[in-house]
Amino acid sequence: MATLSVLEPIRALVGERMSTALPLREQYGNDQTYNPGAAPDAVVYPSNTEEVQAIVKLCAEHGTPIIPYGTGTSLEGHIAAVQGGITLDLSKMDQVIEVNPEDLDCRVQAGVTRKALNAYLRDTGLFFPVDPGADASIGGMTATRASGTNAVRYGTMRENVLGLTVVTADGQIIKTGGRARKSAAGYDLTRLFVGSEGTLGVITEIGLRLYGVPEAISSAVCAFPSVEHAVNTVIQTIQMGVPVARIELLDELQMRACIGYSKLEGYKEAPTLFFEFHGSEASVQEQAETVGEIAGEYGGVDFQWATKPEDRNRLWEARHNAFYAVMATWPNTSAVVTDVCVPISRLAECITKTQQALTESKLISPLVGHVGDGNFHLSIMVNMDDADELKRAKALAEAMVEQALACGGTCTGEHGVGMGKMSYLEAEHGDALNTMRAIKKALDPQGIMNPGKVVKV
Amino acid sequence: MATLSVLEPIRALVGERMSTALPLREQYGNDQTYNPGAAPDAVVYPSNTEEVQAIVKLCAEHGTPIIPYGTGTSLEGHIAAVQGGITLDLSKMDQVIEVNPEDLDCRVQAGVTRKALNAYLRDTGLFFPVDPGADASIGGMTATRASGTNAVRYGTMRENVLGLTVVTADGQIIKTGGRARKSAAGYDLTRLFVGSEGTLGVITEIGLRLYGVPEAISSAVCAFPSVEHAVNTVIQTIQMGVPVARIELLDELQMRACIGYSKLEGYKEAPTLFFEFHGSEASVQEQAETVGEIAGEYGGVDFQWATKPEDRNRLWEARHNAFYAVMATWPNTSAVVTDVCVPISRLAECITKTQQALTESKLISPLVGHVGDGNFHLSIMVNMDDADELKRAKALAEAMVEQALACGGTCTGEHGVGMGKMSYLEAEHGDALNTMRAIKKALDPQGIMNPGKVVKV
Repeated sequence: MATLSVLEPIRALVGERMSTALPLREQYGNDQTYNPGAAPDAVVYPSNTEEVQAIVKLCAEHGTPIIPYGTGTSLEGHIAAVQGGITLDLSKMDQVIEVNPEDLDCRVQAGVTRKALNAYLRDTGLFFPVDPGADASIGGMTATRASGTNAVRYGTMRENVLGLTVVTADGQIIKTGGRARKSAAGYDLTRLFVGSEGTLGVITEIGLRLYGVPEAISSAVCAFPSVEHAVNTVIQTIQMGVPVARIELLDELQMRACIGYSKLEGYKEAPTLFFEFHGSEASVQEQAETVGEIAGEYGGVDFQWATKPEDRNRLWEARHNAFYAVMATWPNTSAVVTDVCVPISRLAECITKTQQALTESKLISPLVGHVGDGNFHLSIMVNMDDADELKRAKALAEAMVEQALACGGTCTGEHGVGMGKMSYLEAEHGDALNTMRAIKKALDPQGIMNPGKVVKV
Repeated sequence: MATLSVLEPIRALVGERMSTALPLREQYGNDQTYNPGAAPDAVVYPSNTEEVQAIVKLCAEHGTPIIPYGTGTSLEGHIAAVQGGITLDLSKMDQVIEVNPEDLDCRVQAGVTRKALNAYLRDTGLFFPVDPGADASIGGMTATRASGTNAVRYGTMRENVLGLTVVTADGQIIKTGGRARKSAAGYDLTRLFVGSEGTLGVITEIGLRLYGVPEAISSAVCAFPSVEHAVNTVIQTIQMGVPVARIELLDELQMRACIGYSKLEGYKEAPTLFFEFHGSEASVQEQAETVGEIAGEYGGVDFQWATKPEDRNRLWEARHNAFYAVMATWPNTSAVVTDVCVPISRLAECITKTQQALTESKLISPLVGHVGDGNFHLSIMVNMDDADELKRAKALAEAMVEQALACGGTCTGEHGVGMGKMSYLEAEHGDALNTMRAIKKALDPQGIMNPGKVVKV
């Protein structure tokens, strides 16, 4: 077996930092989704880029698959070792390499998590805004083109990665991008590797944009008669150029879970928007007032606005604990979380039609959306041991994607393709998929980089 | 000759929309720079994507080079037909296909110019911000990853292109990206074609982000004792999160030209910053006051601030006419304009050292910078018929690039590689150039797409 013969030279290289224990391998090859898991033949913990290079060269010689691994929080079967091979856990590469306050940038090893980075930055007055919820690694967030609640203001990983160090499938160490804010010097390899999900190379270091911690932050919460009223408020807010930092939508069901879990008073079981504003004292006040007026025009009720940290936290508590609220409200089920993204003018329609499919499925699926970007998620509650329920869950997820594509959207706004969304790429991209395949073949001719994910070659 | 045999079937396809007249071909194959020009064998004016596809298929069959052409305002020899072939002038593809005000996006054919687009948008309350100076085509701006004065606030073409229609080198029509604000569905082909300079395919349609025209705009101008003082003002402004829309630096020499040309009163021959602020009435006032205070800390004098359009125009007149001022001040010479971009913390150093090289060169070279991004330009005044002067001009441009790379920057921030900057890519990208070559080979195996530009294969 190809894999086994490579284990000995890797062991010689990394010593104790390799494991072939079955329970560990199974843990690494399975995620929380209904995508089928598959254990790798070994888990290896490299400590630097050169070691990754040496391992990749050995794997290339032996034709052994490599699955780069951050924190394992991906949601579409990205980490399953479907052809066996080596899972490269980069968590030991956890150093912040440099922070340049004058340039508002930093460089980190791939295993640094976003919370660890922000803890490191605390005394600098700077922060890294991309926040997908989970405390994912920066390497994993880069590989899946993650985004989250702050993206409407600060962009996604696509906009916030300045450059990368990547070990290519043939074991070269390349540096893409750089520290200049912009460049027109050749093909944009940085953006090609951002979102490549480990299928084109192993990302080992990342240069990131940072931002000054805003002078003032304020929050607001407002309930609406319908999803459409809420979405129209968002559209108007963005059209007016209000630089809102977060706009989150929770539907009735999600609000019911949150109200029960967080023992909230004064909240309604109704479509609700949560806002966060960043800027100067005067600016956040102006932003909140403007949004309050817009919300009023669209039937928003009980617009609550807070500037003090404790009041802000109270308002946002429901949003922050949304996932735990779901798990607590419907215990003994798993939450299969899936996402799509559409042009915001089609968002209300897409959500409404998805909710019709949801009703037909007879499943419980609270909805949360990063609505400023037209991105929303269903948490489909499902008993994984109930074959019929699982089938209906998959059908619902499929209906949601089909609806998004019919609305001119994408099958995933931020979770990535992995295995779970591969079948939709043909419908979404048509012949452009041929170009993706040509790139995959050119950069990984042996097909050893996270095989069976993103594109079939 | 391969090219000649393809002319007949192309003529059959496009009729009068092809020319083989030598003066026209020479005009199309030569730009305003010292990069050597080369006339194509024919200039063809396709009218839609399907026609581009048919032409590309014919050229692929015959192995004929294709040079996509927008308005010919590129500055690094991008348009020279160094291996002969067909120049595809896309100016007849000048339709705005759709505008979606709710989604703040639009889709245009590649030949629409930025000014034509903004004229079309005038009644919608929306605008497209990327402004490289020249009235370039959106297709050309996409292909060179253009940016310009507004990039510090609104980003470059990299951030503002949502999706593309591209005819690939083998004649497929592919659609990349989409209308959703974000997507994690596969490789980022959009960003790969943005900045590919016609070497990977022909961009025929572009989806763009739009922005609401700001409620208020204000401008300010301030002179400084040195470039370093001016740059420190910029660094502090950005660190404080002031969302300034434009920050332009003009050096002493550029100011001398502008003062003379525009007959300005009250301006100094000193490094000068021009600011523009976009936002609400209250916000632009706050921004200008904040920047005024910062400028004062760094020795700024005569901070002039204006909100009325006529006063704003007066303040910005010098900047808008900077190029004409240079041409009028030093007549009978050509201006060779070249750019680099560095991390902003190194900008003052890079400019100072470049100005030392300039003094040694004994040439006249006014400097203008999009300093919020660390990007600056020299207009090297040179008599193209004076071999020694031309040699010194090239040496100066080279010294500027070497200085930028030594400062951790890039050999071009926004002008692109073309022929003129190819020799620097090895120093800038190292082994990553191998990856660029692999992509070029995979997507254009015959090497017919704008050959001799960006990367050698």
